[in-house]
Amino acid sequence: MEAAAVVLKEHISKTASLTEEELSYLASHFKPLSFKKGQVVIREGDKVEHEYFVLSGCLKAFYINDEVKMHILQFAMPTWWTSDYNALYTQTKATINVDCITDATLLSLSNADREKLCREIHQVEHFFRWRTNRGYVAAQKRLLSLMNNDARTRYEELLQLYPELYSLVPKHLIAAYLGVSRETLSRLYHTR
Amino acid sequence: MEAAAVVLKEHISKTASLTEEELSYLASHFKPLSFKKGQVVIREGDKVEHEYFVLSGCLKAFYINDEVKMHILQFAMPTWWTSDYNALYTQTKATINVDCITDATLLSLSNADREKLCREIHQVEHFFRWRTNRGYVAAQKRLLSLMNNDARTRYEELLQLYPELYSLVPKHLIAAYLGVSRETLSRLYHTR
Repeated sequence: MEAAAVVLKEHISKTASLTEEELSYLASHFKPLSFKKGQVVIREGDKVEHEYFVLSGCLKAFYINDEVKMHILQFAMPTWWTSDYNALYTQTKATINVDCITDATLLSLSNADREKLCREIHQVEHFFRWRTNRGYVAAQKRLLSLMNNDARTRYEELLQLYPELYSLVPKHLIAAYLGVSRETLSRLYHTR
Repeated sequence: MEAAAVVLKEHISKTASLTEEELSYLASHFKPLSFKKGQVVIREGDKVEHEYFVLSGCLKAFYINDEVKMHILQFAMPTWWTSDYNALYTQTKATINVDCITDATLLSLSNADREKLCREIHQVEHFFRWRTNRGYVAAQKRLLSLMNNDARTRYEELLQLYPELYSLVPKHLIAAYLGVSRETLSRLYHTR
């Protein structure tokens, strides 16, 4: 937990001014978890009580529709956060899935503890406000891009957002994020 | 400003516990503005310094691409907030436009004042965290819907989200939100 706590504290200190004592108190509410490649973190229909801070590995948040087609909402890399935030914030059941593309280590924080920590320490509330602000802006950007850009532009944007993705993630998952076929992705890749 | 302050205070009190004195102090940082139908609030390329709380009327946040096609990111109705949040939060120039579909009255709050108020009053930071949480969840839902649902389902979702929209907003704007042609929208409307 020691090394994990250091990563978490560094991450939070980029946005909020907490004393070492407050950081340690905050970190004590996170629980370390290890997952194997392919393991499920959140399953559609589950009750969602936690969000996850990624220490190592790569996860995907995704949705599978009636035609068994996968749509990827988010990849999550080290120092990213992931959950089904709709389910977590509105206390409803998961409508998406989160699983591990590679072996992964995470820190989990419960909804109740996040709210408690936000009440107790003003700067923790500040941190979580700005984390969500950034998530909101990223979601809006992706929305505009999906409405407006062709596959080529969305592919370039994806590589900018996650430069290391192409070596980490199977091609069919990248295609599922972009909403294109594997053939189209292969064409984009080879004509770059 | 008196009636406007009451609406704002009610809206904020749904999420945060502020004293009457704190609410009045908060409200004193908002500036009332009146716009005529068609007037521009934010123009692509502008510096963005404010966000807007809608008191009356209806606005749209939109993007026009190289082919002069309009994509609507958000409609904003009374008690909704709007801005180019990407530009506002990252202190970059506007990449979208916001204008008035009808005559509208707004309350503006500057970025600097929001941050100051969040520092000064913990419950104000709480309010803005939860406002963004809800925006984030709404953006993710729309993203999933855009990736996954057909025009019929997106149309039904839109009517659920904004029941009064159909009587307020010209049909070509609803089509621009859904990303369909006016002919498709008309078919959806008449076969409901």
